[in-house]
Amino acid sequence: MARIDVKPDGYNYLFNPANAPVAHVNPGDDVFIWTDDASESRIKTKDDLPKKKLATVHFLNPQTGPIYVNGAEAGDTLAITIKDIVFDRDYAFSAFAEHFGAMSAVPLTSLQPPLKEHTWIWEKVDKDGNYWYEPELDICIPKRPFLGTFAVAPEGEAISSLAPGPFGGNMDCPDICPGNTIYLPCYNDGGLFYTGDCHAAQGDGELCGFALEITAVSHLVFNVIKNKQITNPRIENDEKIMCVGSARPMEDATRIAYYELIHWIHEDYGFSLDEAYQICAQVGRCYVANIVDTLWSMCASVEKKFLKRCGGKPKPEDLK
Amino acid sequence: MARIDVKPDGYNYLFNPANAPVAHVNPGDDVFIWTDDASESRIKTKDDLPKKKLATVHFLNPQTGPIYVNGAEAGDTLAITIKDIVFDRDYAFSAFAEHFGAMSAVPLTSLQPPLKEHTWIWEKVDKDGNYWYEPELDICIPKRPFLGTFAVAPEGEAISSLAPGPFGGNMDCPDICPGNTIYLPCYNDGGLFYTGDCHAAQGDGELCGFALEITAVSHLVFNVIKNKQITNPRIENDEKIMCVGSARPMEDATRIAYYELIHWIHEDYGFSLDEAYQICAQVGRCYVANIVDTLWSMCASVEKKFLKRCGGKPKPEDLK
Amino acid sequence: MARIDVKPDGYNYLFNPANAPVAHVNPGDDVFIWTDDASESRIKTKDDLPKKKLATVHFLNPQTGPIYVNGAEAGDTLAITIKDIVFDRDYAFSAFAEHFGAMSAVPLTSLQPPLKEHTWIWEKVDKDGNYWYEPELDICIPKRPFLGTFAVAPEGEAISSLAPGPFGGNMDCPDICPGNTIYLPCYNDGGLFYTGDCHAAQGDGELCGFALEITAVSHLVFNVIKNKQITNPRIENDEKIMCVGSARPMEDATRIAYYELIHWIHEDYGFSLDEAYQICAQVGRCYVANIVDTLWSMCASVEKKFLKRCGGKPKPEDLK
Amino acid sequence: MARIDVKPDGYNYLFNPANAPVAHVNPGDDVFIWTDDASESRIKTKDDLPKKKLATVHFLNPQTGPIYVNGAEAGDTLAITIKDIVFDRDYAFSAFAEHFGAMSAVPLTSLQPPLKEHTWIWEKVDKDGNYWYEPELDICIPKRPFLGTFAVAPEGEAISSLAPGPFGGNMDCPDICPGNTIYLPCYNDGGLFYTGDCHAAQGDGELCGFALEITAVSHLVFNVIKNKQITNPRIENDEKIMCVGSARPMEDATRIAYYELIHWIHEDYGFSLDEAYQICAQVGRCYVANIVDTLWSMCASVEKKFLKRCGGKPKPEDLK
Repeated sequence: MARIDVKPDGYNYLFNPANAPVAHVNPGDDVFIWTDDASESRIKTKDDLPKKKLATVHFLNPQTGPIYVNGAEAGDTLAITIKDIVFDRDYAFSAFAEHFGAMSAVPLTSLQPPLKEHTWIWEKVDKDGNYWYEPELDICIPKRPFLGTFAVAPEGEAISSLAPGPFGGNMDCPDICPGNTIYLPCYNDGGLFYTGDCHAAQGDGELCGFALEITAVSHLVFNVIKNKQITNPRIENDEKIMCVGSARPMEDATRIAYYELIHWIHEDYGFSLDEAYQICAQVGRCYVANIVDTLWSMCASVEKKFLKRCGGKPKPEDLK
Repeated sequence: MARIDVKPDGYNYLFNPANAPVAHVNPGDDVFIWTDDASESRIKTKDDLPKKKLATVHFLNPQTGPIYVNGAEAGDTLAITIKDIVFDRDYAFSAFAEHFGAMSAVPLTSLQPPLKEHTWIWEKVDKDGNYWYEPELDICIPKRPFLGTFAVAPEGEAISSLAPGPFGGNMDCPDICPGNTIYLPCYNDGGLFYTGDCHAAQGDGELCGFALEITAVSHLVFNVIKNKQITNPRIENDEKIMCVGSARPMEDATRIAYYELIHWIHEDYGFSLDEAYQICAQVGRCYVANIVDTLWSMCASVEKKFLKRCGGKPKPEDLK
Repeated sequence: MARIDVKPDGYNYLFNPANAPVAHVNPGDDVFIWTDDASESRIKTKDDLPKKKLATVHFLNPQTGPIYVNGAEAGDTLAITIKDIVFDRDYAFSAFAEHFGAMSAVPLTSLQPPLKEHTWIWEKVDKDGNYWYEPELDICIPKRPFLGTFAVAPEGEAISSLAPGPFGGNMDCPDICPGNTIYLPCYNDGGLFYTGDCHAAQGDGELCGFALEITAVSHLVFNVIKNKQITNPRIENDEKIMCVGSARPMEDATRIAYYELIHWIHEDYGFSLDEAYQICAQVGRCYVANIVDTLWSMCASVEKKFLKRCGGKPKPEDLK
Repeated sequence: MARIDVKPDGYNYLFNPANAPVAHVNPGDDVFIWTDDASESRIKTKDDLPKKKLATVHFLNPQTGPIYVNGAEAGDTLAITIKDIVFDRDYAFSAFAEHFGAMSAVPLTSLQPPLKEHTWIWEKVDKDGNYWYEPELDICIPKRPFLGTFAVAPEGEAISSLAPGPFGGNMDCPDICPGNTIYLPCYNDGGLFYTGDCHAAQGDGELCGFALEITAVSHLVFNVIKNKQITNPRIENDEKIMCVGSARPMEDATRIAYYELIHWIHEDYGFSLDEAYQICAQVGRCYVANIVDTLWSMCASVEKKFLKRCGGKPKPEDLK
């Protein structure tokens, strides 16, 4: 298993099956991927307002990729384990941008004046960035590191890196994090993986549209599950299985996430669809990943411990 | 402080300011409230399908109340602490009903055939109902007890007990649970509190429309905050503050929950609205309470530990 | 057939089955109903901004009613023909109000500054109000008179007169106009009819939240269709049948309107549901009635001439 | 001005800026474009169900294009006048497909059984297809010919021909018809125009997902408006200006359509944004173009006669 470093000369701003791979990797390789922040490092200080630095730019959210995974073919599933995410600088920015963010009307739908722009600069407290401090707020928060964008190239289409969808993309889902394995459907040979938009921390929904935006190096390991088709992104760790649905309105994103979860339980855990539906109704969990991107993303999950038949009613004394 | 038992002769099916109180209580009283299940105990066995037992009934979700809280006036806020919820029988039911539930089209919007009805009977494993077992599924899950319906009478309107809204109502929010204090706006003198629809457990969203539906006795303590106006339900415990928004589409429920939370942080914790917005963007949490009622409900929260100014950037060695 | 004049001493602000009737009428009577405007005549000049005149008021949209229709019982359908609408003053107002209107974020969902308030005063050009002129705009438009609110009391609930729903209500649908017959389901004996909110003209959607708001006298004739159940409001004239759906999001309002129309075609015109669905797909029409009330309303229609079997393929020469 | 016939050897299924032009035309040329139907002529008889003929196909809705318009550059606007649409065969098909259409749940959001599939074959009554007859329904309807898909290549992205958006696309808007001029924003040099999906007739919304699908030859004339930027598709004829908004939920599509219309009135007719908003509120019209594609499309319009200042209040005798 080789170590492969992917540090791009330039970026892509589309999840595009036509882009030339920036790297080829084998299943099991230790792949270290450098990603720029969503502003392409244009926002560095409190004076760097989005209007000045971002509104004039044609494409945002630079992506590192595509990475070609040897052996992956259309109709397979990529299984990508995030081993680690290391922040690559001492600050992260967040911002309010005009006509952007959940507490502001969607662009082109309102005649209201915009919310006032503002840039926030979060500073590392400790060397590893386990904690972050914003001087103006004067508060300190722990890290919740993850990759906001995590995608394969779609089937045929070339889609903006601002969009989430069945191919993954800009889901802004905090469970795309170290310790978890993410499954994405392969529409193209090699899978053609893209990532970017690392967040040092983020609340559910990425409410104002910018998390703690940061550059990073992520350690990923790719595997290929042959001839396995999934419909939307899946996530797994020792305790839980999770699915991400992206759509508008948000109830459809929720339904898609649970639909995929119900089918996963049915396929891999020996329950009927009806049984899986009942299980999700009673022990499913579902939170908002993003409410600011081109589609909203929801993450539904269930703990694996509930996906085992008991073999008869337990005795009270068997329960801890 | 007196002990007051509220065990109704009959129920109400509307959150209605015109209903006569079934009890008067003083702030601080220990109030024990008996609530029937959402089917009014019509569903008892696997053979009791919703079509047979519920579809012919005019009103569902029987409410115990209204309870008149002495001293509460329109313009005040009720603060209601849930001390305990004790289940009142050995089984809970769940069900699939035609044209109901998140994985089925909303009534009157589809020509598709309905999903097949099914009734599930969950049995207590231990005396206290800490664990529940469903024989057909052959799985066991822990309790997550809460009151699905928790309301005050609205201003003027008389609204179905199936509806959530600014007045609380049928939010199906699992944080309406023992250990938490719930704040509801008073639109009428006495507050006129209603509750019902106890759930022994429920997943986020109450996906199929029925949780573990059960009869219960809940121990509540009421207090009145004079001249305090809130706009939507708030919830608090030692660790967190939470708000519930109910609306369609779901993104509006999410926005309402966060809007109320941002204003709460602003009012009580000394942050500007902009600062509160940034805090929620980075450390807010938001999950689906219900995606099956007349409006969807979302619960947004933030941990109290993030709502304190540090008094300057912390030193790494000060962080645990 | 008697002439009955209904000019109220006061108004109701709820569609409420518990309100005492303001009049009893027989089927076929000529009923002349006076209605105030939605502001209860509080806005009279350009200086009367909504913030000053309306924001402090508890209830808006005053209703004349309920009118008890003799012979109507729960389970029947009211058929109400609008013979005429006569405007009762020389001006109509429209306005922009803070956090209201389709081009402004929904209240409680946005932190943006509000749109600036503005009051517009439209003046009658001719005695009958066939044309209207606004001096600031300096444009002239024809009348499109209709009753914005047209309701029966719901089953049990007492609902704000700002709300549309299956019971009719604040649909703001321009086809509730002279020459048309409107069908509403009876949930209560007497039907308990309410109306108000006359508009001298309105665009599709009532975009800014206020049409040409005016006082009026409307000439209605009530009839009762015994033992006929409908699910949502229906409208009919010589050329068309129409249905109104009210819901959020707007696609559900559209589906409800077409669902009711498909069932109407099936029940009364001898087509199967599938056939009715295909007919609506090819010759249905559907416009926005309101995008500003508590639910959005859509009006779907089909021309009656398409609801007749040809008895075989026509010859080209038979077509005009 | 030359006559140019565009009859493709093959089709594109993406609105893609990277595709090689199939034709180059000059402004003013008479361009005759052959388009296949949305099924690529796979459905010919009642036995050709979508499941059998379409569900296995990777790409649907074949497009003729891109057509390169000489002189058009990014930042310009294409003005395309539809002179005529001539149907190219004697039948048109419509169909119900599983998990498709407005009266069926959106794919991946429901566990309900699908609606039963059905294919309808509409036959020309007269040589020109002014009237159409379906034998099973035994009804006859007039033509309402238009091009369901009408697009330019987006900026950077390559998007499925099933999608509508700011670039036009699969709007299924009946006002993309003979006699009207459609304006589309140029994101690429040459504009790169695509069209297809001709409908012989369609109801508002294309309710079941298939209109009267037909092959056709359309006579278009292209012009270029230099340095003119629009945000969403605009349509014009002698009487009206119209705008199409595409989004989910449908209220956002409606807002986008009216937002564009308000700005058009402001830019070209000398009214302030506030005035334009008031005008749309009182005389705007807005109907459902599609409720079945990847985004819903709404068409908002206003008659030009209302966009002229009167120069003072008219006298009653001046009005006809």
